[in-house]
Amino acid sequence: MAEKKTANSLSRAPVVGIDLGGTKILAASVDARGKILSRFKKKTKAKNSHKEVISRIALCARGAVEQAGLDLSRIAAVGIGAPGALNPEKGVIHLAPNLNWENVPLKKILEQELKRPVFIGNDVNVGILGEHRMGAGKGMQNLVGIFIGTGIGGGLVFNGQIYEGAHFMAGEIGHIPLVKGGPVCGCGRRGCFEAVAGRLAIVRSIENKIKKGKKSILEQDVKGDFSRIKSRRLAWAWKEKDPVAVRELKSAARYIGWGTAIALTLLNPDAVILGGGLIEAMDDKFFEYIVKSAKQRSFSPIFKETKILRALLGDDAGIVGAAFLARDKLVKK
Amino acid sequence: MAEKKTANSLSRAPVVGIDLGGTKILAASVDARGKILSRFKKKTKAKNSHKEVISRIALCARGAVEQAGLDLSRIAAVGIGAPGALNPEKGVIHLAPNLNWENVPLKKILEQELKRPVFIGNDVNVGILGEHRMGAGKGMQNLVGIFIGTGIGGGLVFNGQIYEGAHFMAGEIGHIPLVKGGPVCGCGRRGCFEAVAGRLAIVRSIENKIKKGKKSILEQDVKGDFSRIKSRRLAWAWKEKDPVAVRELKSAARYIGWGTAIALTLLNPDAVILGGGLIEAMDDKFFEYIVKSAKQRSFSPIFKETKILRALLGDDAGIVGAAFLARDKLVKK
Repeated sequence: MAEKKTANSLSRAPVVGIDLGGTKILAASVDARGKILSRFKKKTKAKNSHKEVISRIALCARGAVEQAGLDLSRIAAVGIGAPGALNPEKGVIHLAPNLNWENVPLKKILEQELKRPVFIGNDVNVGILGEHRMGAGKGMQNLVGIFIGTGIGGGLVFNGQIYEGAHFMAGEIGHIPLVKGGPVCGCGRRGCFEAVAGRLAIVRSIENKIKKGKKSILEQDVKGDFSRIKSRRLAWAWKEKDPVAVRELKSAARYIGWGTAIALTLLNPDAVILGGGLIEAMDDKFFEYIVKSAKQRSFSPIFKETKILRALLGDDAGIVGAAFLARDKLVKK
Repeated sequence: MAEKKTANSLSRAPVVGIDLGGTKILAASVDARGKILSRFKKKTKAKNSHKEVISRIALCARGAVEQAGLDLSRIAAVGIGAPGALNPEKGVIHLAPNLNWENVPLKKILEQELKRPVFIGNDVNVGILGEHRMGAGKGMQNLVGIFIGTGIGGGLVFNGQIYEGAHFMAGEIGHIPLVKGGPVCGCGRRGCFEAVAGRLAIVRSIENKIKKGKKSILEQDVKGDFSRIKSRRLAWAWKEKDPVAVRELKSAARYIGWGTAIALTLLNPDAVILGGGLIEAMDDKFFEYIVKSAKQRSFSPIFKETKILRALLGDDAGIVGAAFLARDKLVKK
């Protein structure tokens, strides 16, 4: 009985949610209802050893707890959304190129540092879980999340829980094959969804057009390094009706609609939630192009029943989702 | 206590599994381990009213029970895999073109006839459930079933249970968009998976080639009606190395591999199970073409971990799956 009471009070206690990225670590104290009580942020400094990076994660966790006027011992658990291939059950990051990590036992090391239970999940899965509990997918049971940034990531929620697949790799929508003989993808194959509709793919197409002599306002401050063109810059060129940018962004919107159509036709979710840097930066007109393309390509009885929504939480999706991940796992334990 | 005992003994009692098709009704008594105790079969006679067809379903259920030397009152439940769009919770078939049914309350009418609980599910979902419990997917947790026959159907098992989606329409893999501007599909759009790799699509391509003057052994007994060419006939032409048939079947195998690649990259299942009339009729060489194409197009870290298997149960998948559907629902009730 006493034990049960402790478990109950812990399940109402705040948790720490952490979004571990290649450039920054975001941490937050999050209460049982999903409200963010405090935030703490540090650079990742991924060039350092994994032990040093994990110390910085611990620092962020402590920082977020202090900011909320709490004590670490009163925190029920710590959840982390991490990039790359990982095993949530073992708590090991198998391969995270952004961090230069290979087989890092993140859960174990961090539990030793913090003396609190730590749970890890893939960052994209954690992001869609955040949207499911507190964002665009609140109250729904089945969601497909598609996040368009540098590349394209996907996350799946079925029956109210993250679906991780047989080997924790589900949701790799960025690598579904779309275009036969299309551009080469980072994964080595041709024509992946990400290779025709991710930001890097869009920028590469624009670069090719400019090099072939097309005029674009995006040339101005690039100084030969097109990787400087981020989503906001693309959105600016779109608003300025730059013909090269408009053409490539429309093409990307059609492909995003195509990927959306495949996912919803196969999975009949309540909603497809589109997020990530590019979607956040672009206007409603761009979003409408995506929806129009999805409608043309979807099985219509399913399309009619499916909402296509913008993600609502932005950067908070990661920390809120990580907090709910920790809470879910704590209850299941 | 008495009630619990009854529930327990009922959960070990045989159930009846029924596969309701446009041309025939298959029924079986199935024990708690999934063993088929008896079979019974009738033509559907779908031109009759739905009430007459449902009477024939009842006849098949009674027939299967009698064949097993049982009494209907000792049957725990009846499960039915039915074609078309349906609501398993309400037990209503919304639209089944093969049966000319619209909004038929199958569950209600059959429960009145049989005085036993009746549960319905989509025939393709029920088929993959059969493969999950007793066939190629036994012991696995997450499966994608792709059934290539006249058209292409799909069924999903996640965490050991059928995944029906938000509106019971999940698994429509036959209508995912594959080929931009491809052939027109029965659903009205162009380039669906089914429109380039289902049997009707293959036969149509062969017909077009022959009409353009290509020679094929498939011309022989067709007498102008190419819809006579069924899967076995295609398999025969493939074995005879008929150039037109080989070319179109290889093209279909590439597309089946493509659809497989999309599903496994997105869903990271333990296995993709391929079944249906065309897969059953064709030899291992054809299957190897499919696997080769899937390998080329899949995200390789996921492909490496995924089995691509032939379905094992053939026509029995429907009756066995329907029996397990009924058993699952009975336990949940």
